[in-house]
Amino acid sequence: MKSRLFVTYQLRCTAAEAPARARALAIEQSIEMPPEAIASDKLRARVLARVESIAPDPGDPHMQRATLSLSPDTIGDDAGQLLNMLFGNCALQSDVTLLDAQLPEPLLAALPGPRFGIAGWRAAIGPTADGRPLGCAPLKPQGLAPEELARLAYSFARAGIDVVKDDHGIADQEAAPFEQRVPLVQRAIEHANREKQASHDARLSGHRTLYAPHLSGGQVRLERQLAVLRNEGVGAALACPMLIGVSTLAELARGKAGVPILAHPAFAGGQISPALLLGRLYRLFGADATIFPNWGGRFSFSRDECLAIAAAARDPLAAHAPILPVPAGGMRIERCTEMVEAFGTDTMLLIGGDLLSAGPAMPARAAAFACALWSTRTSAGRRAAA
Amino acid sequence: MKSRLFVTYQLRCTAAEAPARARALAIEQSIEMPPEAIASDKLRARVLARVESIAPDPGDPHMQRATLSLSPDTIGDDAGQLLNMLFGNCALQSDVTLLDAQLPEPLLAALPGPRFGIAGWRAAIGPTADGRPLGCAPLKPQGLAPEELARLAYSFARAGIDVVKDDHGIADQEAAPFEQRVPLVQRAIEHANREKQASHDARLSGHRTLYAPHLSGGQVRLERQLAVLRNEGVGAALACPMLIGVSTLAELARGKAGVPILAHPAFAGGQISPALLLGRLYRLFGADATIFPNWGGRFSFSRDECLAIAAAARDPLAAHAPILPVPAGGMRIERCTEMVEAFGTDTMLLIGGDLLSAGPAMPARAAAFACALWSTRTSAGRRAAA
Repeated sequence: MKSRLFVTYQLRCTAAEAPARARALAIEQSIEMPPEAIASDKLRARVLARVESIAPDPGDPHMQRATLSLSPDTIGDDAGQLLNMLFGNCALQSDVTLLDAQLPEPLLAALPGPRFGIAGWRAAIGPTADGRPLGCAPLKPQGLAPEELARLAYSFARAGIDVVKDDHGIADQEAAPFEQRVPLVQRAIEHANREKQASHDARLSGHRTLYAPHLSGGQVRLERQLAVLRNEGVGAALACPMLIGVSTLAELARGKAGVPILAHPAFAGGQISPALLLGRLYRLFGADATIFPNWGGRFSFSRDECLAIAAAARDPLAAHAPILPVPAGGMRIERCTEMVEAFGTDTMLLIGGDLLSAGPAMPARAAAFACALWSTRTSAGRRAAA
Repeated sequence: MKSRLFVTYQLRCTAAEAPARARALAIEQSIEMPPEAIASDKLRARVLARVESIAPDPGDPHMQRATLSLSPDTIGDDAGQLLNMLFGNCALQSDVTLLDAQLPEPLLAALPGPRFGIAGWRAAIGPTADGRPLGCAPLKPQGLAPEELARLAYSFARAGIDVVKDDHGIADQEAAPFEQRVPLVQRAIEHANREKQASHDARLSGHRTLYAPHLSGGQVRLERQLAVLRNEGVGAALACPMLIGVSTLAELARGKAGVPILAHPAFAGGQISPALLLGRLYRLFGADATIFPNWGGRFSFSRDECLAIAAAARDPLAAHAPILPVPAGGMRIERCTEMVEAFGTDTMLLIGGDLLSAGPAMPARAAAFACALWSTRTSAGRRAAA
């Protein structure tokens, strides 16, 4: 008997209604037909999801919590099919929220997980990245020409930003088509990296900024983009798993991308716990870092939700490496210390508007961001960089 | 100056808060940075989304409606990037619901739309499909072996069901791997089709049942599945656009699939109007039919929402063909007449559990379903079948 998945849902119903609602959910998320219509008792026992426990929701008196167990046979090894079984049909039922999923060992092992993880990011950036949080800045706004984006990327790289990412709104549009933009930006970053090589500043000497261009579209477009990545020696990639599909993310992680993947939460709405989706599942599907909107910015995630995403990104998870939580969404340099205190050293901070708003002082502000991260180095980081 | 997209959102805020909230949403869904940080007035004017109008929500005093206009330059021609611009970041903001999107003509033309549409389904099934609604039945539950699924498919086909689809929970698992299941099911259906060929029953003579196996996974798996489809001469396909990614659906529609595509709404939750997502957008992205949970079943869509999906599936939309609305989700044969009256002849009814619950009487009940659809034929259908 294979171990089952244990999946916890929040149900908007009374305690009296909960057993019937949970039972209906178990049917919906597995056989999707009347159980009595299945002739074979053995098949029914194996495939039908079971209601394992029901309890009042600790936080909301109008909600109940139900834990169902699902058969791993209904999933196989595909990331998309896992989402389908966890939340396929019930995504259309507004009284259900997916809170948590505990996956059995063989299923955890069947999913790719991160190919690089936190250590992979640091190795790619170089010894000056050891023992400190990483910094990321976005190329934006969309509409800039490739040359303008390349100039911006050069400034970020020269200032010591670790990862320069495309804005998730920059895809493959006319203003800066992928095949024109990516080589120019990558070369600008390499130019900055060569200049830093000769720097006498310990913070910059040997520092390699990575570029994470936004992979988007279907297979045909993605293959073209991946060829550019390989040809230009690009060091990372950005992807929106909810837009390209989580099975595609898994294939990128299994080897197609060949570089660390930064996951962006675009279109990841719906009634799923952010810690489960952006933390544990994106990690299992192959992200090496996961961006999420930090508290106190333009979004409504709470401090607890953000810390739970970070925990899901880094907590032990079978043999899968930990990945970087990337708090973002309207952050300012002045919050660096607070964020590092909250999230720890194994974190990548993403700051955009605050740097870009500085106008001509942008390079100085980007350097201040990188310095703020450098100043939080632990002794391990200082030893490694010495 | 290119025509812009007009996108309507519902915002949970007071009328007094609405202008600032709408303005913040316009920034979030376009440049995602402080507008004053963009040096070029021209770029800002082109790329920044604009608040075109704000009004109280007619249905809810705690809600406001805001219509923004977006630049088509921010989208290009990719389905995923369209979703990204319509609802990428704000999917993470629980106070925003996407209600409607009016797309300019060039963008409508750049998206694939259905390759077959309603006429394509009828042509593939044969003249007995003219002038009447179509019927669809699912192979389920997951866990059945390929031989058992093939027997079920034969019964459905022999009874005159027009489209036999995989349950969306049947993907590529161990119990019935795609490459074993699809050839067996397809051959069983072809066997039934040959038997019907010789039938003296006008309803069955020349009737070709189509099989719609579930395409799932990333590119590698999909390519393998598409090869099976082609090799076996399978007549249709089922896909969950939210799981495989809408850009992948668009590529399937652009030619990779080569058969009519039945879209399944799995994982299509979140705060987007079902008429927009399951109706207009799935159609634009390449679905030839779109399944949705009908009112009065296991889901909570209202009658108005369901009729709005059907309208979005069939209303004039640039040069794109109309597609079949497919009401489903706990329907019974006894509701056929009511559903046909509500949705009209250009509809496909999907009934599952009600047929499968009949046990040994399933073939008779499936035939009763097909007969109920046949009996609603219009005179045009009778002429075509004569």
